[in-house]
Amino acid sequence: MDYLTGVQPKETLEISELMEQTVQGSIVKVNGAVHTIRDMGTVAFVILRKREGLLQCVYEEGTADFDLKEIQEAATIEVEGVLEANEKAPNGIEVRMEKLRILSEPADEMMPLAISKWKLNTSLEAKLNYRSISLRNIRERAKFRIQEGLTRAFRDFLYSQGFTEIHTPKIGAKGAEGGANIFKLEYFHRPAVLAQSPQFYKQMMVGVFDRVFETAPVFRAEKHNTKRHLNEYTSLDFEMGYIDGFEDIMAMETGFLQYAMELLDKEYAKELKILGVTLPKVDQIPAVPFKEIKELVAEKYGHKMRNPFDLEPEEEVLIGRYAKEEWDSDFVFVTHYPSKKRPFYAMDDPEDTRYTLSFDLLFRGLEITTGGQRIHDYKMLTEKIAARGMSEEGMEQYLATFKHGMPPHGGLGIGLERLTMQLIGEDNVRETTLFPRDLSRLEP
Amino acid sequence: MDYLTGVQPKETLEISELMEQTVQGSIVKVNGAVHTIRDMGTVAFVILRKREGLLQCVYEEGTADFDLKEIQEAATIEVEGVLEANEKAPNGIEVRMEKLRILSEPADEMMPLAISKWKLNTSLEAKLNYRSISLRNIRERAKFRIQEGLTRAFRDFLYSQGFTEIHTPKIGAKGAEGGANIFKLEYFHRPAVLAQSPQFYKQMMVGVFDRVFETAPVFRAEKHNTKRHLNEYTSLDFEMGYIDGFEDIMAMETGFLQYAMELLDKEYAKELKILGVTLPKVDQIPAVPFKEIKELVAEKYGHKMRNPFDLEPEEEVLIGRYAKEEWDSDFVFVTHYPSKKRPFYAMDDPEDTRYTLSFDLLFRGLEITTGGQRIHDYKMLTEKIAARGMSEEGMEQYLATFKHGMPPHGGLGIGLERLTMQLIGEDNVRETTLFPRDLSRLEP
Repeated sequence: MDYLTGVQPKETLEISELMEQTVQGSIVKVNGAVHTIRDMGTVAFVILRKREGLLQCVYEEGTADFDLKEIQEAATIEVEGVLEANEKAPNGIEVRMEKLRILSEPADEMMPLAISKWKLNTSLEAKLNYRSISLRNIRERAKFRIQEGLTRAFRDFLYSQGFTEIHTPKIGAKGAEGGANIFKLEYFHRPAVLAQSPQFYKQMMVGVFDRVFETAPVFRAEKHNTKRHLNEYTSLDFEMGYIDGFEDIMAMETGFLQYAMELLDKEYAKELKILGVTLPKVDQIPAVPFKEIKELVAEKYGHKMRNPFDLEPEEEVLIGRYAKEEWDSDFVFVTHYPSKKRPFYAMDDPEDTRYTLSFDLLFRGLEITTGGQRIHDYKMLTEKIAARGMSEEGMEQYLATFKHGMPPHGGLGIGLERLTMQLIGEDNVRETTLFPRDLSRLEP
Repeated sequence: MDYLTGVQPKETLEISELMEQTVQGSIVKVNGAVHTIRDMGTVAFVILRKREGLLQCVYEEGTADFDLKEIQEAATIEVEGVLEANEKAPNGIEVRMEKLRILSEPADEMMPLAISKWKLNTSLEAKLNYRSISLRNIRERAKFRIQEGLTRAFRDFLYSQGFTEIHTPKIGAKGAEGGANIFKLEYFHRPAVLAQSPQFYKQMMVGVFDRVFETAPVFRAEKHNTKRHLNEYTSLDFEMGYIDGFEDIMAMETGFLQYAMELLDKEYAKELKILGVTLPKVDQIPAVPFKEIKELVAEKYGHKMRNPFDLEPEEEVLIGRYAKEEWDSDFVFVTHYPSKKRPFYAMDDPEDTRYTLSFDLLFRGLEITTGGQRIHDYKMLTEKIAARGMSEEGMEQYLATFKHGMPPHGGLGIGLERLTMQLIGEDNVRETTLFPRDLSRLEP
């Protein structure tokens, strides 16, 4: 019988630890994957890929007690050697190799993609087909570090605002929003569906925790094959009670974005630099009613409105342009969406019931959030369901929650992959999805 | 056009803010749900349920400018009044009500459950049927705050250890572990399955980020109807590269548990107190081989071993008892599981290939983690697949990852609901699942 006492310090060092080493010329031990080898004849550079970046190891005959040929690309190795400063090397340091230990070797050194190039010069299709290889490219990998920062910021900011994290079921008897875009499955000989959103559950939990959030997958069986749709994505959802109006929801999202940019700037500067990303300003975000912004862009850009009840993708782009030009903002809240385009639980605007107390957030011309105030009154809710000709079937427990009292509340959902895409400046959401699922892609 | 500038301070105060008010007798504004009303004749106590706990509001005719009858249970209200110290009140404070604003009213004041009782005196069945109501009970709610603390600790600890968070798809073409326990669905006229675990994906991502984790739902179509099985649960998964052995994985889990207990002690003390939970010691966790511990408990407790290749539930209980009695530990790692009971990707022990370099973690006699070192060598992996008579079909991209080099690695999965159950001392995992899914339960 042995005892485990927790994580012990390792002999091998990470890049940040090497950079903190005050004594140059000390002997260090490092490990990593052989990203590439550049053999210059008398000297060779073995570039290690580590989780914190690239590390240059220098091989010279005489100094090293092994043969360079022992190292092949895509192997993982442990190196012992002398740490030196070299301003031309990544992070300003290099290790002059003395001893080598092979940790693992590839069965096939020929990579399907040239991952050690600065930019992966290949099609999106190829990148996705060889996902576990393409992400070994430093730039590709950095996108998902940024994505981590966004998720982390969402949670940490909401914790600080008194929210409780919840985990709601993804398999259920009925979809939250209804409609045809639901994946169906058999659940022990009963029909079941995959959750399109945690909407019902997060509302029900507002009556318990006041403020809740969830960061989890949602499933949409939409037959859209566009650059901005996925059939499975990560939704950053929150719902909060005791609001004075839907402006509280927008203020909370603005606060999240401010916190997220600070966190990225502080903890993900390396990745931002790798990707050449300049963070957007989020000190204030303009909010303008749906009807008004449609007219503003129609006028300014001579755009012909075709659908008065929804925003077309081209209109979103124009609104983004308008917000940038007129208000110098990468973000814009579009408020008061038409009621007929919002789900039954959306609170209608008492001043004009054709519109709702809801909003979308556009980021550089793309919708990344839908949110708003919800109906909290049982009678109002059931009347709206009836007025829409909908059935209460399958919503009994959701509705019962309102029967027993609910505070005024609202919330939103943010598409994580879209938010990442817009921040980084990609033009296809698959670029910022680890393993995308779309109409034709179910693997890897 | 307006501008949103982020979260603004609210006029209404939370309990912690009230407790920090240095000037007693000041006028404060608070809101909350009317948890219960105790009318004593000349004075009445209106207990508000807020996210931070209960707040006692005192109604006296003459002081208040409204009639007590205006307040009904399950309404949400805003109160203005004088803050006073009262050591008999929850948190030592109360508010003497002066002004009232009704925020919302229930359609039906009669609750299906007596949620304001200290302990919900009802069946598990009823609790789950009325989930959004039963969780309004202070004790029921506290369980999920503890659960939040565990998830949060998992992530924060792993961030500090250089892990990257990933989001892997839940819909796929083939299950990670194979077998019959997979939910099937139709994906745009193609057969698909729900992920039993992120196993393949997290391993593939070790080649990219070295260390990864995910906290996400997993789906198991197991026909078990027990107190410890769910068909959908939250799995805390991590996978790490450059390990020296599977002991590194156990050490990382030990470190997580140490961090988790510290975080709970620091930030969730209120909830621990509500539930009467004493945190277990985790300064060191004993680790003992499968074969050895089976013999030890057989000998000590006169238990008859029936299955030499697996642990029966009763055996887990005895091992938990043994660990407590012999090593004064609530946790015990059981190492070196038989190879035939582990998936193909488990690394066999080179010293005795009938066993693997893997482990389970038992917490108070229940398995809460399965983990271990994985095979990282392409040839070894494909040979083991062949030796088991399995097909490589559907695993092409997983296997290709190994062809192109992978560091020695391993990882684990923790069942969040089970961990919460054992920590709190519940005897049914449904008690610590927000909306459980089992053989017969698909709603709410």
